[in-house]
Amino acid sequence: MCGIVGIVAKSFVNQTIFDALTVLQHRGQDAAGMVTCEGNRFYMRKDNGLVNEVFRTRHMKRLMGNMGIGHVRYPTAGSSSAAEAQPFYVNSPYGIALCHNGNLTNADELADQMFRADLRHINTTSDSEVLLNVFAHELQQQGKLVPDADDIFAAVANVHKRVKGGYAVVAVITGYGILAFRDPNGIRPLVYGTRSIEGGEETMVASESVALDISGFTRVRDIEPGEAIFIDMQGNIHTRQCAEKTSLTPCLFEFVYLARPDSIIDDVNVHQARMRMGVKLAEKVQRERPEHDIDVIIPIPDTSRTSALEMAKHLNVTFREGFIKNRYIGRTFIMPGQTQRKRSVRRKLNPIESEFKGKVVMLVDDSIVRGTTSKQIVQMARDMGARKVYFASAAPPVRFPNVYGIDMPSPTEFIAHNRTEDEIGEAIGADWMLYQDLSDLQASVSEEHSGITHFDSSVFDGHYVTGDIDERYLVRLDQKRNDLAKVDEETSEHADEASADLHTKIQ
Amino acid sequence: MCGIVGIVAKSFVNQTIFDALTVLQHRGQDAAGMVTCEGNRFYMRKDNGLVNEVFRTRHMKRLMGNMGIGHVRYPTAGSSSAAEAQPFYVNSPYGIALCHNGNLTNADELADQMFRADLRHINTTSDSEVLLNVFAHELQQQGKLVPDADDIFAAVANVHKRVKGGYAVVAVITGYGILAFRDPNGIRPLVYGTRSIEGGEETMVASESVALDISGFTRVRDIEPGEAIFIDMQGNIHTRQCAEKTSLTPCLFEFVYLARPDSIIDDVNVHQARMRMGVKLAEKVQRERPEHDIDVIIPIPDTSRTSALEMAKHLNVTFREGFIKNRYIGRTFIMPGQTQRKRSVRRKLNPIESEFKGKVVMLVDDSIVRGTTSKQIVQMARDMGARKVYFASAAPPVRFPNVYGIDMPSPTEFIAHNRTEDEIGEAIGADWMLYQDLSDLQASVSEEHSGITHFDSSVFDGHYVTGDIDERYLVRLDQKRNDLAKVDEETSEHADEASADLHTKIQ
Amino acid sequence: MCGIVGIVAKSFVNQTIFDALTVLQHRGQDAAGMVTCEGNRFYMRKDNGLVNEVFRTRHMKRLMGNMGIGHVRYPTAGSSSAAEAQPFYVNSPYGIALCHNGNLTNADELADQMFRADLRHINTTSDSEVLLNVFAHELQQQGKLVPDADDIFAAVANVHKRVKGGYAVVAVITGYGILAFRDPNGIRPLVYGTRSIEGGEETMVASESVALDISGFTRVRDIEPGEAIFIDMQGNIHTRQCAEKTSLTPCLFEFVYLARPDSIIDDVNVHQARMRMGVKLAEKVQRERPEHDIDVIIPIPDTSRTSALEMAKHLNVTFREGFIKNRYIGRTFIMPGQTQRKRSVRRKLNPIESEFKGKVVMLVDDSIVRGTTSKQIVQMARDMGARKVYFASAAPPVRFPNVYGIDMPSPTEFIAHNRTEDEIGEAIGADWMLYQDLSDLQASVSEEHSGITHFDSSVFDGHYVTGDIDERYLVRLDQKRNDLAKVDEETSEHADEASADLHTKIQ
Amino acid sequence: MCGIVGIVAKSFVNQTIFDALTVLQHRGQDAAGMVTCEGNRFYMRKDNGLVNEVFRTRHMKRLMGNMGIGHVRYPTAGSSSAAEAQPFYVNSPYGIALCHNGNLTNADELADQMFRADLRHINTTSDSEVLLNVFAHELQQQGKLVPDADDIFAAVANVHKRVKGGYAVVAVITGYGILAFRDPNGIRPLVYGTRSIEGGEETMVASESVALDISGFTRVRDIEPGEAIFIDMQGNIHTRQCAEKTSLTPCLFEFVYLARPDSIIDDVNVHQARMRMGVKLAEKVQRERPEHDIDVIIPIPDTSRTSALEMAKHLNVTFREGFIKNRYIGRTFIMPGQTQRKRSVRRKLNPIESEFKGKVVMLVDDSIVRGTTSKQIVQMARDMGARKVYFASAAPPVRFPNVYGIDMPSPTEFIAHNRTEDEIGEAIGADWMLYQDLSDLQASVSEEHSGITHFDSSVFDGHYVTGDIDERYLVRLDQKRNDLAKVDEETSEHADEASADLHTKIQ
Repeated sequence: MCGIVGIVAKSFVNQTIFDALTVLQHRGQDAAGMVTCEGNRFYMRKDNGLVNEVFRTRHMKRLMGNMGIGHVRYPTAGSSSAAEAQPFYVNSPYGIALCHNGNLTNADELADQMFRADLRHINTTSDSEVLLNVFAHELQQQGKLVPDADDIFAAVANVHKRVKGGYAVVAVITGYGILAFRDPNGIRPLVYGTRSIEGGEETMVASESVALDISGFTRVRDIEPGEAIFIDMQGNIHTRQCAEKTSLTPCLFEFVYLARPDSIIDDVNVHQARMRMGVKLAEKVQRERPEHDIDVIIPIPDTSRTSALEMAKHLNVTFREGFIKNRYIGRTFIMPGQTQRKRSVRRKLNPIESEFKGKVVMLVDDSIVRGTTSKQIVQMARDMGARKVYFASAAPPVRFPNVYGIDMPSPTEFIAHNRTEDEIGEAIGADWMLYQDLSDLQASVSEEHSGITHFDSSVFDGHYVTGDIDERYLVRLDQKRNDLAKVDEETSEHADEASADLHTKIQ
Repeated sequence: MCGIVGIVAKSFVNQTIFDALTVLQHRGQDAAGMVTCEGNRFYMRKDNGLVNEVFRTRHMKRLMGNMGIGHVRYPTAGSSSAAEAQPFYVNSPYGIALCHNGNLTNADELADQMFRADLRHINTTSDSEVLLNVFAHELQQQGKLVPDADDIFAAVANVHKRVKGGYAVVAVITGYGILAFRDPNGIRPLVYGTRSIEGGEETMVASESVALDISGFTRVRDIEPGEAIFIDMQGNIHTRQCAEKTSLTPCLFEFVYLARPDSIIDDVNVHQARMRMGVKLAEKVQRERPEHDIDVIIPIPDTSRTSALEMAKHLNVTFREGFIKNRYIGRTFIMPGQTQRKRSVRRKLNPIESEFKGKVVMLVDDSIVRGTTSKQIVQMARDMGARKVYFASAAPPVRFPNVYGIDMPSPTEFIAHNRTEDEIGEAIGADWMLYQDLSDLQASVSEEHSGITHFDSSVFDGHYVTGDIDERYLVRLDQKRNDLAKVDEETSEHADEASADLHTKIQ
Repeated sequence: MCGIVGIVAKSFVNQTIFDALTVLQHRGQDAAGMVTCEGNRFYMRKDNGLVNEVFRTRHMKRLMGNMGIGHVRYPTAGSSSAAEAQPFYVNSPYGIALCHNGNLTNADELADQMFRADLRHINTTSDSEVLLNVFAHELQQQGKLVPDADDIFAAVANVHKRVKGGYAVVAVITGYGILAFRDPNGIRPLVYGTRSIEGGEETMVASESVALDISGFTRVRDIEPGEAIFIDMQGNIHTRQCAEKTSLTPCLFEFVYLARPDSIIDDVNVHQARMRMGVKLAEKVQRERPEHDIDVIIPIPDTSRTSALEMAKHLNVTFREGFIKNRYIGRTFIMPGQTQRKRSVRRKLNPIESEFKGKVVMLVDDSIVRGTTSKQIVQMARDMGARKVYFASAAPPVRFPNVYGIDMPSPTEFIAHNRTEDEIGEAIGADWMLYQDLSDLQASVSEEHSGITHFDSSVFDGHYVTGDIDERYLVRLDQKRNDLAKVDEETSEHADEASADLHTKIQ
Repeated sequence: MCGIVGIVAKSFVNQTIFDALTVLQHRGQDAAGMVTCEGNRFYMRKDNGLVNEVFRTRHMKRLMGNMGIGHVRYPTAGSSSAAEAQPFYVNSPYGIALCHNGNLTNADELADQMFRADLRHINTTSDSEVLLNVFAHELQQQGKLVPDADDIFAAVANVHKRVKGGYAVVAVITGYGILAFRDPNGIRPLVYGTRSIEGGEETMVASESVALDISGFTRVRDIEPGEAIFIDMQGNIHTRQCAEKTSLTPCLFEFVYLARPDSIIDDVNVHQARMRMGVKLAEKVQRERPEHDIDVIIPIPDTSRTSALEMAKHLNVTFREGFIKNRYIGRTFIMPGQTQRKRSVRRKLNPIESEFKGKVVMLVDDSIVRGTTSKQIVQMARDMGARKVYFASAAPPVRFPNVYGIDMPSPTEFIAHNRTEDEIGEAIGADWMLYQDLSDLQASVSEEHSGITHFDSSVFDGHYVTGDIDERYLVRLDQKRNDLAKVDEETSEHADEASADLHTKIQ
């Protein structure tokens, strides 16, 4: 997962990109980067760290220009180096910097093609560098000294033909403008909006609409699957459908967990979708255990709060905040001669005893991946004196790997691996394990936008909308993942726990 | 406001102090410090910044020893320099490092006395340095080469006689142990707990019980007003009442806003106290507007969530999360030639339109100080389409300065200055302004601990429990505050907005 | 002026490149950079600062691979940013990183050509980025998936046809090897050597032979004007003359001032050349003032020591160290409200009174550019009680700009501007001004290598060996220089004096 | 070895202290520190590193006030931490900061006395902290609220009675002035001077007169053994002989190696003393080998240059610079899995072959300690083709430890340990080993100042002028040294070679 933003404005864009990245920070806390363009010149800053850490006054002073793009990176196996922070840059043709959110499933082949076609060297393992070179190659093929929107859209069309996977992309072309486009299945989100100021109209493209909100841009609409938008330096907006065949199958996990609740993705209000997930969970309780004995419903903060609240409301059960999240979780320092201490979930969540003591509690989380945290939380509830501990997940069991840009552990590490729902409940120690049905989850989203008939729900059902994922691909992916993870471990023996934390965030 | 912690353990304490400081971070994000003691030697690290920023591996490696103290500092006017980070240290007698939470109201006189008595020089404007020297002076008066608990308690008794104000203190005496004590009125909180490990018992003293929880210490009890606790290097716990006259009048603002909800202060569960605040608010609504038309109750996150939830439950009104807090708020960079942009509350809170549109909303906050943020929030609710906007505060109007360690703007900047409650509502643009009654607020806390009959509620009623605060003192304080604030402004023209944020947090 | 190095070895080269750069540090203290190549991947580190400051353990750990290149940069007007540190990198074809020492006189035209030919964007004002793109373009024209030495030399041959100026270049081609070449006039120096270790032979190319010495490489020979050397990853050395017409006209200033005395450049021992300069100066004294009254000859450290010593020996006059150089010259901090203090030469040189008092002293310097320092030194000698102060320069008056890579002030700032030699002596306050004759200076070098019949001695005689420099070029250059210097001044108002120092080093 | 400075001026002193420390940097490159005083307040900055690295603009901005002191530290075993950088500070009485150059031989006893007398805790192993507390104790005994010069001098008199060893001290007393004093044997140097500016006279005290020169202060005179100087805040200078029995026995090593040649110490011009050392060496050659076959005399730069030049002049032998010193010696990075490479002297010195080839060379160094470098240099000369290699040392063999502040290896590591002069020559591989006689060395200095009849020449003859050093002390010292060195090794496994370099500088 990553967050992207691109702006064409009437004055320097560095602060607005910075602001956008801070509200997209939940999409990636591993690295951040920005490229701005003034006249014929690029300015770049990227490094590992949070937005606040990467951009200091001395960097901002150099990030001049009225257009630019920005990126926050979620850590993935093997990508931990600052050199792989985005955006990436090539100087031919024109000078292009690009960043994206997603994952290309044919990156290795593409890298090979690009070398053969243009002798283009890919220096990292990042698929963004591959994507950039594919686009650069296609744009160079147009052969124009001064490219116009038609040339650029033609290049995007060719990119869609070559590239497979899920991707939302933003790029800046020196001296010409900002380009953004979305994969033909619309897996990863992309939205744009405008802001009128004295002197004209300014345009922002971003992963989520919250980035528009914070700086006073008004959301216009989502970029459609396969569509591209090009904003030239004068601020003119050009859009074009560049893919031959498209379908809207957004990633279901965005609605469950990844996106901010106050975002609108593909015309669906995430907050309301999550409320409906809670209602569906309530209905399932009523179906399955109409005589349930739940005393209190307690969310595992922060994501599941919305669902849990509505679930409680519909069951007419008391809702309480039973866990306080530690917002300033620190590192575990490894002193010479020490071995790493076992990390307790207590460092992340602190329970309030009075909300558990003597009660039958229903804990609600958005989803369960590895289940190790869930297990500790269930135990913590018992330690606080809960009579019974039930556990609800707003999403169905996660059983399959994600190949469209969400980094997850190896499927064999999933708690759902080779387990039925009941067995999962047993494994985490819950007295009752309640999983959302996939159809209910899908309905929670699609009720608001009848145009969405299918989703990328691969992590739940193993169906990959791009059609190019087979067993062999998944096995190779898992192997590669394990190899890279091992490298990471070796090279970052002194890495902060903070960053380890981010890896396990999806659960 | 500050947070303090002290530990005597059987192995190195640096990591445990670090962990404690991270969960006390809400009490002060301005600076952090730690002193550990191994054998006859102190190790210190302190600097401006968050706990995570101040302590790096290279510092932790040097912070050796089985006992130590730690501190997080809330910014106050004039204290912004790293040199004023705590703990402070004197080398005579014995080597003592000390830090505290609170404020001495007679610090200037004391500094003068200390110079005259021992030629002790106070090098900063920090009252902690004064307090340390008073204690050092009194301990030196005991005249022992090897001090025992009696000597130490005798010194504390003399400190209580000299010092006025609110203070919770922790100190480490080289080669002897950790001392902690609390002012005779128990204004600032202080609690201790123990942890059994192989090899014996370990003890922690801290501002809040959450610091105990996170590292597996079991809360024993609060330190009583005027009481001192001394844990020697062998881990033996000595306690003594060192004040002649004591009363328990804890700071009411801790329960309203400052403390973490999962803490227990003076035997009162903060979470439950806040729940009762919500119930009282609901009762006041029922008393004043039994026919109210509230459609939805929306908290202003995070502190007021607990109260708002119970308020909604008791009124049987829908509770909804209508604002999403931006967790990664960034800085505003001031570029050469630019003037500072007006900062919008939108950078901190993002509203979800669907929760406001066409509804009568009751917003709930914990308290209102300057009111500038409240006003913007009310406007934001209207912009989202709310039909009517009501505003409830879980605390009464803040009308008087705090002199016991909570930094606030000048009283003339309070929105309640020279305004009735209705006028305040008008000033912030609310259709109905609902303030908690002081007696209800007090009852919310004291219902759980009948031993608390009075509070330090001076910010609401102007009654100062230490009895030494008159109009002249307050005028001088305000003058000093303004002078120091001006200095801060001059010296930190490039200061981060983040830190400016902290100053205005109390509202 | 810059220093360059390239190595192909049998184990990691980062430390050896680091060591080489430290002994080339006198050629550029403004910025440093390194690119290493392992397998198919580049690792780069470059930044402003001394070699010791730029490369830290954390960077060295990442600079993996058995081949690589390095660079130290001398500051030139407009190049102060870290982004303009070398090496530069392009990813097409193959991935090439390149750095150079020298200056292209037709960089602007080339940049334009490259854009038109390949849409290659040049993002900085550095001519190294231009040179890299020219080479990349020519290599791409060869159209090979796997380039061999012939392809590479063919590309260099085409570079020589396009590029004008003085340049010594080193480049690394991902997966293939290290390339180095020198301009057809041999203006800037380039030498190579080898080291036998277990496992084979290792090769280093560098600006000066001292870089070979320090790591135990044996100097083989200078690269000839127009020649290229390619060392493939297996360590095989290929050389080829790539220019159609060549002549050896090395920069005379290298021998006077720029190079280390212990280097051998174009088969000439710099140390011995400088000794001969001293002999020639002595002979001129004997010609002009056979009855001279010189009591003592005192060098202005460090460069002129060698010449001054031989001059004294041949005149049979006492030689003494009369000035002690301050090795740790610090910055002048500009405090708020202060204006910059006038900088005294006393901060660089401290005189020993007893060597001046009552004596007739002959001061010897390598050359005089602006003359401001010389003037202060003469005055300092008088202040110390010298009876008369004579001043000798081992080089003739500097009267013309350098266009081959030595940054100098505008010619109008030269002390020799519109002044005869006697007038210069008067201007700096000397009782006798003794300038080396150009023919003597040339003879000092060529006596050791009869093959050198001409030099680039343009700063002395205005003759530019590349034949493309006319009055119009020089006027434009001066204009550009002044514009860039102004930008530097504005953007680096807080820049260290240390860096200002470097600018004026060529006095 | 350390360097100290103290200034009372009419405007801020931070820049002048900074400048003084840069020219004293040769006395200590390990750590630097400064304390300034404005009004009643101290400002301090100290850290490991060179002066240029320790003081940045942000520190300088805070170092306000018209008086202050500064320090550069030479590394000694066990003192490598930044916490032991000087100055040290105590807040009672008055607030005093102090730093010194030298070593106390009874520091442990004094630390114990100070604890017993005042319960003063010494937190480091630094004898400076001890010395500060002794002075603070004695000043407090005077019992004045406002101390005058008499009180301060009385305290110094008592310090002299308690303290043993060699020491030159500078201290600042908050609100009163700067104090400096020198041990009763005048072992370590201390000088003062004044500068007239508009508004009055400014005074500087420093280790060496070069610190005065660089900022335009005029040397007044050396502080006498046992004497103290106090400059009050108004700029009035008070001096007083505070020791009962004094003698002038300056450290002979200052003249041989430690001091800058352009300094005047105890009225002796160091440059001229070194010239005389060369003359004495020449005379010894003439006595011992009147028929010598020396072709060329070559100094080992930089210190021995002065002596070697005069030696050559008196022998009428050619003098040549045969070694070029690498001024930017870098670190050796230890990569994971690598073992440290053997460090070659070649990284420090590069020979010029033509000065050695076929010649009988006499190498001249100031002194020989371990001899490992000398041995490598002799070999290097042979490798360059020297026919015979002679080696002269301007000082006699170093055979005994220094206890007055010069850090040296254990005596068993000295090359002179259990070896005659001829055996030393053999050990380093020289064909002839020529050591200066001690009487000649002493005469070289005392010829200029007949008042110096004795020296601290303990490293050569084992005679300790303070009379308190016996065999038992030296054995304990050596033991302690080895223990501390081991600790350093363990704690600084990644320490830069640069710092290791400094340790071995004395040879």
